[in-house]
Amino acid sequence: MEWIDKMKKTVSDDIWHSDEAILASHGSDQTEDLVHLPHLVAKPKNIEQIASILKFCTDHKIPLTPRGAGTGLSGGSLPVNGGISLSLDNFNSILEIDEENLQATVEAGVINETFQQAVKEKGLFYPPDPASKGSCMLGGNIAHSSGGPKALKYGTTRDYVLNLEVVLPTGEIIWTGADTLKYSTGYNLTHLMIGSEGTLGIVTKIVFKLLPHPNHDLLLLAKFDRLEDACQSVPQIFTKGISPSAIELMERNAIEFVNKHGLENNKAVATTMLENQDTKAYLLIEVDGNDLEAMMDDCGTINEVLENNNCSEVQFADTADQKERLWSIRRSIGEMVKVHSIYKEEDTVVKRAYLPELLNGVKSIGSSFGFESVCYGHAGDGNLHINIIKGDMSDDKWNGTHLENGIREIFRLCKKLGGTISGEHGIGLVQKKYMNEVLDPIHFTLMKGIKNTFDPAGIMNPGKIWE
Amino acid sequence: MEWIDKMKKTVSDDIWHSDEAILASHGSDQTEDLVHLPHLVAKPKNIEQIASILKFCTDHKIPLTPRGAGTGLSGGSLPVNGGISLSLDNFNSILEIDEENLQATVEAGVINETFQQAVKEKGLFYPPDPASKGSCMLGGNIAHSSGGPKALKYGTTRDYVLNLEVVLPTGEIIWTGADTLKYSTGYNLTHLMIGSEGTLGIVTKIVFKLLPHPNHDLLLLAKFDRLEDACQSVPQIFTKGISPSAIELMERNAIEFVNKHGLENNKAVATTMLENQDTKAYLLIEVDGNDLEAMMDDCGTINEVLENNNCSEVQFADTADQKERLWSIRRSIGEMVKVHSIYKEEDTVVKRAYLPELLNGVKSIGSSFGFESVCYGHAGDGNLHINIIKGDMSDDKWNGTHLENGIREIFRLCKKLGGTISGEHGIGLVQKKYMNEVLDPIHFTLMKGIKNTFDPAGIMNPGKIWE
Repeated sequence: MEWIDKMKKTVSDDIWHSDEAILASHGSDQTEDLVHLPHLVAKPKNIEQIASILKFCTDHKIPLTPRGAGTGLSGGSLPVNGGISLSLDNFNSILEIDEENLQATVEAGVINETFQQAVKEKGLFYPPDPASKGSCMLGGNIAHSSGGPKALKYGTTRDYVLNLEVVLPTGEIIWTGADTLKYSTGYNLTHLMIGSEGTLGIVTKIVFKLLPHPNHDLLLLAKFDRLEDACQSVPQIFTKGISPSAIELMERNAIEFVNKHGLENNKAVATTMLENQDTKAYLLIEVDGNDLEAMMDDCGTINEVLENNNCSEVQFADTADQKERLWSIRRSIGEMVKVHSIYKEEDTVVKRAYLPELLNGVKSIGSSFGFESVCYGHAGDGNLHINIIKGDMSDDKWNGTHLENGIREIFRLCKKLGGTISGEHGIGLVQKKYMNEVLDPIHFTLMKGIKNTFDPAGIMNPGKIWE
Repeated sequence: MEWIDKMKKTVSDDIWHSDEAILASHGSDQTEDLVHLPHLVAKPKNIEQIASILKFCTDHKIPLTPRGAGTGLSGGSLPVNGGISLSLDNFNSILEIDEENLQATVEAGVINETFQQAVKEKGLFYPPDPASKGSCMLGGNIAHSSGGPKALKYGTTRDYVLNLEVVLPTGEIIWTGADTLKYSTGYNLTHLMIGSEGTLGIVTKIVFKLLPHPNHDLLLLAKFDRLEDACQSVPQIFTKGISPSAIELMERNAIEFVNKHGLENNKAVATTMLENQDTKAYLLIEVDGNDLEAMMDDCGTINEVLENNNCSEVQFADTADQKERLWSIRRSIGEMVKVHSIYKEEDTVVKRAYLPELLNGVKSIGSSFGFESVCYGHAGDGNLHINIIKGDMSDDKWNGTHLENGIREIFRLCKKLGGTISGEHGIGLVQKKYMNEVLDPIHFTLMKGIKNTFDPAGIMNPGKIWE
């Protein structure tokens, strides 16, 4: 293609890749089995190159899709219209950890866990911890305002971003705000960028606020014979005045998948979790803080709530290894389900107390439409991940309106329960057809107006968020 | 005027007011001595009337300025182009306090403190507490993402808003998001509305998230002979791993104004605060929580930090009355300065550790430009309120480029220290000419594009945020 030669002449040749393996690796992410190849992969080395590429794309109307680590679950990094897939691989430096101001400045390609570890070494805490924290990039976390278990007490990525360096589609470079804890200086472009899924510009640097790292954490595993009992205990913990740092729900079948396909160490633990056939659900509850005695008191209160809700057993994780094992099991569920079968992952979110209604609804919709589901996730936030398993559903039903209608039913239920269709995974490619279940035409008019202001040529991550 | 008669025929007559006293009361707020009269005051009784008024204004290009309680400090509610001043007085209901989900739904005209009290009665906590909390409206708090002392630990208004009902300038009514703790469903219109100073639409209902109310709070008053020592101790408290719920700084002259003009009860306390002529600055430090013993430990550590920074005395507030007295003194400073002289209030914010540099800079700029200043505010956030006193400065110098250049110097210094020109008061009318100190032309292009998307006729709160 003509534009490819031109592009390579505009920005130094050594950042461009088009061999089959690289195109293929940029053509998929963690979303189902979808593949959309780019024409060209860019691995720019500095911000000036990104600016030149974006300006070129705007001038020549070439689609450009930003690419982090490709761990997304909504197809946000798939180059559905071809064009350029632009990788942030080379933007992987932690530029400053400012211990005096409890802030850090990082490049967007830094891995979440790498950053967490680096600040922890200085006694500081960056809480957002998506299940993919070992591989996902902070820039991708910005794209969807990623959460994770600790969002319950500490909020999502959004709550830690002070300022963003962004390359706009026109090639201009801005900082969206200031490096301050408070900001009331015009429209908040920082918060507008967060969650915009790479459709308004490319985030290159991030200024995060940090917290002092809590000294202790305690982890409980609670077993229930009824899923409903597990769900119902969750809001009651909060009305007792306790704010755990995580409350994760796992259905029995989630643990079964880990037991079948997981790491050996995880399998062993999963086996004991499954010993009692009556156990149908688990809550993993973490409490953190600096005062161990007060935390033990909180655990006592939590225990009472769990017992009042027919919890069959509560176990404390005694060692760091036991804790890591349980967290590893929780984090690996999605991957283990995928080993078994293609699945569609829904990221439903409702008011916390309505979780039992959502779960019952999902199971009943599943019966009507003939699909099995694995439900787990951030119960304390009302954020339930639903893995709908393809199993032996026909391709027609799976890809066509049959399953789509079933998913619509789930999302209508979410809306009825004060909720929406994505809490932390974003809309990307695979959820956009459902957006009309929760938004009105005027919402799209406003969003498209914003998009057009930032990206007049419509080059940035086209084909995402809305149809 | 012709449009007035037409307007009154469009929306029921009994909501319109144009007698002199009401026009005058809507022509000023708490900003300096500025007066800009509207042509007409609207006190709509329901959202349909607001929608009809806005649609009419869009169709006929009539300026419309939303009006909360008029406690703003940046002139945001002044109808600088005349037209309609639309009051939210009648939207004063707390619609629901949902104890199960720790949420509340309120109308935008509810007074901040009324809401705080109502949720406190149910053991719940709404932290944002601007100095004007006894009179300011929650809708106005949304307009600027208001903070207050507790923002230090708990964040600003923004951090508690889940969902907003908004009447758009075209008369359409939307909910911006969902009633959920997490949201990743397209551009975040909720966060875009927050801080947009009534230029994108009128917020009519708000869904807030709430916290369990902490059981205890402790309040310390620390005295310093040097302003610099007070400032320097602030970041050191955080690097010790402690997160106080407030750290407020007050200069000696701030207390002197309270001593001259304040309530009798406040005067008495102020007199003792001023007894030692060497005392030049005070820190008011609050610690809250549920575990009194742990809080006392934190106070011990804070005390050490203060002593290491040459604090001359630390006093505990023993009773609820003593606490309220100290907070009342802190909250009344702005008002007391105003009794003495017209002043301009700046709402500077920098990285926390740079506060000493900011303060020194402000005093030195004051010397060069011949103005006295009273500095106080949210030291823990790096958010310093600077009251520049007119005193005997000539009107020419006060209103002209002389003082303007001095203020520019202050804002340039803020930018140099990683900060910006407003942390929580907003830009409104009086700060807009300084926006070019911290933003580039491209920022204005983006903001104006957003504005134009929401408000194509440009009727909503015109003449604000940018020139």
